[in-house]
Amino acid sequence: MNTLACPLPIRTKDQILLGHGSGGTLSAELMRDIFLPAFSNPILDCLDDQAVVSVNGVRLAITTDSFVVKPLFFRGGDIGSLAVHGTVNDLAMGGATPLFLTVAFILEEGLSTETLRRVVDSLARAAAAAGVRIVTGDTKVVEKGSGDGLFINTTGIGIVPDGVRLSANQAKPGDKVILSGAIGEHGIAILAEREGLEFESPVGSDSAALNTLVADMLAAVQGIRCLRDPTRGGVSSTLNEIAQQSKVSMLLDERAIPVRPEVQGACELLGLDPMYVANEGKLIAIVDPADEAPLLSAMRRHPLGQAAATIGVVTEGHPGMVTMRTVLGTSRVVDMLAGDQLPRIC
Amino acid sequence: MNTLACPLPIRTKDQILLGHGSGGTLSAELMRDIFLPAFSNPILDCLDDQAVVSVNGVRLAITTDSFVVKPLFFRGGDIGSLAVHGTVNDLAMGGATPLFLTVAFILEEGLSTETLRRVVDSLARAAAAAGVRIVTGDTKVVEKGSGDGLFINTTGIGIVPDGVRLSANQAKPGDKVILSGAIGEHGIAILAEREGLEFESPVGSDSAALNTLVADMLAAVQGIRCLRDPTRGGVSSTLNEIAQQSKVSMLLDERAIPVRPEVQGACELLGLDPMYVANEGKLIAIVDPADEAPLLSAMRRHPLGQAAATIGVVTEGHPGMVTMRTVLGTSRVVDMLAGDQLPRIC
Repeated sequence: MNTLACPLPIRTKDQILLGHGSGGTLSAELMRDIFLPAFSNPILDCLDDQAVVSVNGVRLAITTDSFVVKPLFFRGGDIGSLAVHGTVNDLAMGGATPLFLTVAFILEEGLSTETLRRVVDSLARAAAAAGVRIVTGDTKVVEKGSGDGLFINTTGIGIVPDGVRLSANQAKPGDKVILSGAIGEHGIAILAEREGLEFESPVGSDSAALNTLVADMLAAVQGIRCLRDPTRGGVSSTLNEIAQQSKVSMLLDERAIPVRPEVQGACELLGLDPMYVANEGKLIAIVDPADEAPLLSAMRRHPLGQAAATIGVVTEGHPGMVTMRTVLGTSRVVDMLAGDQLPRIC
Repeated sequence: MNTLACPLPIRTKDQILLGHGSGGTLSAELMRDIFLPAFSNPILDCLDDQAVVSVNGVRLAITTDSFVVKPLFFRGGDIGSLAVHGTVNDLAMGGATPLFLTVAFILEEGLSTETLRRVVDSLARAAAAAGVRIVTGDTKVVEKGSGDGLFINTTGIGIVPDGVRLSANQAKPGDKVILSGAIGEHGIAILAEREGLEFESPVGSDSAALNTLVADMLAAVQGIRCLRDPTRGGVSSTLNEIAQQSKVSMLLDERAIPVRPEVQGACELLGLDPMYVANEGKLIAIVDPADEAPLLSAMRRHPLGQAAATIGVVTEGHPGMVTMRTVLGTSRVVDMLAGDQLPRIC
């Protein structure tokens, strides 16, 4: 009897897989099956990258993220700067001005204090550059083998200006889909570092704080419906989330999506689709078509938005469906990331 | 040559030890040598359990904690309820009314989803009971062997009522030191679970949310200088921190410190001093002597303060020194916890 002919099913329902942390469909399942039934409330149920709450008339944005990126240091950044950029960006995507960060470390016994010092210094510099203050923190230590060097949680608090109401459920047919720059750089930089790959033109992470870019965008036009940074799961997963939450379709134009040639080359070599590769310094804006031109010109004046481009349009088709006209002229469905293309990318 | 005669020195300065997470002197060193030089700002430098910031005239309290307790489930609680109580209590110690929690999970690949569900349900129940809303969250997954089941970070945000200004630097000679109840229960419960110890009267964790007790205390008297919950490092480490930050001495009366007989017995058996064992449902108040009696009676009317007692007095002696008159009538210095008496207690 050939036992391989009938493999045992993988019991994905019973245990946590790496893909549950990838920001794709398994993450969404975990949210739907475990977290939402227990935690559901009107604020959490918005499922935006940040919660917006009102305290004595002041509108606060709150967001939290843990960082488990491997390796700790990579071309273009490290876990410390990433822990600032990731959380600052989640606040900025709500239109909030980031004010305060909390920082919590889980250290593995045996970590060199020099490594910790480098990460802490980088984190402090990134926070100062982004204009946020680190107001409180925590440190825990676990035994050797119960962690992996160090993990960082940052939680960010910001203030949402009057009149700003961005949410992933506000996209309307006719709206334009704008991307702030070239995609896939963070994911490829991490993968190259992890696997020891060398490219002719090395790819560095795009990790950056987007709050000043967002401030310029909000000052330029009134018609921004939604902002999102396409991190884990890439541009595809983020657009799918917006389409689902707004109950609209989207039609993308592959030729319009900026990808640097070295990223495209690395993706082809590795069998990856850049649409699913993580970014840490890019944003997607869904905007009223009347504001497309002034928004693009405001973005292109900012150093982090120079390659901003309209990559598609919101349509009335099947709710939640994202399709793309490819460079070959054919059309394909752009789905959410299903599994764990690149674990521990942030 | 006997190489054992001259052991190599342990290079504690070069790498992270379990003791760096214990809340004692090694934790304080990490703070002084690495975190404060990088992150220093007037809010962080207060070194209270929570930061108090002002946003458009609203005074917010912010605190963060990661939870790595082992095992995940123990008599009297689990990592989920603990992650709520610990953060709610840090807000309450600033006199704040807890409003919002963020929850971030780091899951180890292979964790059973049933375990995750139990923890999530417990966390949700504890949050509802404490009156805080979970507004946003995050989930990351690390490879098997790079984590330990699950870690949780909770960050809490609360509002500080007008007129409330509590801080560990406000203790004055003559102030009374009040403890809300019997000590050492959380640490002994964890240790018993971890080591499979069985006592005639089992000890359960005291894990509880103290926000309603604090509200009653603040309503009863005006003269509370400082509140702290003696978690990692126990009552000794907490009192040392207050004495150092206020530049005062303290004199404690050992006979006045409530310890349940089963905790005392377990400590004697295990060679532990209950003054250094962690609590998760107790608080220490430093109070104007004129308010001692009304404060004690308000505390004793609350279910979590029934055994409240005055355990000592703030004095003018050597700044930062805590001494205790023992049951034998002798006097001894009560120092900060030096190493890692019980790692991963919270």
